[in-house]
Amino acid sequence: MPTEPQPSSERVRIRRLPARGDYDPEAIAAILDEALICHVGFSAGGQVYVIPTIHARVGEVLYLHGSPASRMLKTLAGGGSCCVTVTLLDGVVLARSAFHHSLNYRSVVVLATATEVTDRARKREALHALVEQMIPGRSTSCRMPNDEELRRTTVLELPISEASAKIRTGPPGDDEPDYALDHWAGVIPLRLQANPPVADPALAAHVEMPSHVRGWSPGPGP
Amino acid sequence: MPTEPQPSSERVRIRRLPARGDYDPEAIAAILDEALICHVGFSAGGQVYVIPTIHARVGEVLYLHGSPASRMLKTLAGGGSCCVTVTLLDGVVLARSAFHHSLNYRSVVVLATATEVTDRARKREALHALVEQMIPGRSTSCRMPNDEELRRTTVLELPISEASAKIRTGPPGDDEPDYALDHWAGVIPLRLQANPPVADPALAAHVEMPSHVRGWSPGPGP
Repeated sequence: MPTEPQPSSERVRIRRLPARGDYDPEAIAAILDEALICHVGFSAGGQVYVIPTIHARVGEVLYLHGSPASRMLKTLAGGGSCCVTVTLLDGVVLARSAFHHSLNYRSVVVLATATEVTDRARKREALHALVEQMIPGRSTSCRMPNDEELRRTTVLELPISEASAKIRTGPPGDDEPDYALDHWAGVIPLRLQANPPVADPALAAHVEMPSHVRGWSPGPGP
Repeated sequence: MPTEPQPSSERVRIRRLPARGDYDPEAIAAILDEALICHVGFSAGGQVYVIPTIHARVGEVLYLHGSPASRMLKTLAGGGSCCVTVTLLDGVVLARSAFHHSLNYRSVVVLATATEVTDRARKREALHALVEQMIPGRSTSCRMPNDEELRRTTVLELPISEASAKIRTGPPGDDEPDYALDHWAGVIPLRLQANPPVADPALAAHVEMPSHVRGWSPGPGP
């Protein structure tokens, strides 16, 4: 019988509702890849902060980037404790009891210490991945960073070695006596939806919308 | 000339791209109200964690809830430093340069110390707000918590007094020379979309889908 993947540390073991935990690296990677943003937690001056930002995954590494002036990136590069969390919302779960209302979701928590990427080739590789994470095909359809922009960008890498996913799917689960109640129960599925692209008002009239823009949608869903 | 709202502390002043900062309590409340989930940052055992959960706002107070066994709630109730962040994704911003790619978003950061709500009437009020934040009208269409469920739920309150919003809207902003490039630029608007509700397979055939379910959609958008 195949063994289920186990948590890489006790710190990432799902303790609340453990059946929802998933430690399979492929499941973790798929959630990280579908998410357009992550929330990064760090501590500075005795206060915890949680800041949304974009990320990209390349193999077992997560990249973050931003301005060298960013407090978040400076704190993370300094080796402070860090947590990167992504959450994909898949549905509103309506139970017969308020108590069993929930959300369907896929989330990943990564605990890591960040390292600054200073090698120029690797910085370019990371920025390539960040653009492609946002919209596949884009890196060949825009002007990629010049040396000055590369200098003005801090890139951090974090190993995805201490991570776990937590996933809820399916219908509500009510307590047995409540199934006799006549309250509607079920799931309202949620999807992040792309609406028709809006051209920059400054766009030259002869520039047509490319297929990587026209055909883009935010991930495969659950 | 009316004065713009100022940050309530230096800790919540938007330092990166300050023009995106908004300290208007009504703007902050609107973002908190539209969000179905928040990300809560806290520190436990020297490690920062960021956990997604649902929240509800009532006036100047934010409510969180969950199991009394939750490490997050126990840590927060213990008075630890805490940050609650919500982010609404409004668009993918495609510039002519990779450097100016961005997202349109509305986010709020709340720094606070949590207090446990132990008064039973106030706990019920908070749970009412949590159900209504998820789906307005639901609290009168499900079985609200009984005494046992109330005991099995921890409710925390956090003042929304030290908070800021950060908002990006509109088209990309490229560097002047890049406007001559023939790369498509613009915004792909994003919306969280509700798909048709799916009844619980265990739902009795005579229970019809109520209007608060059929008519629900996730917030007004930007």
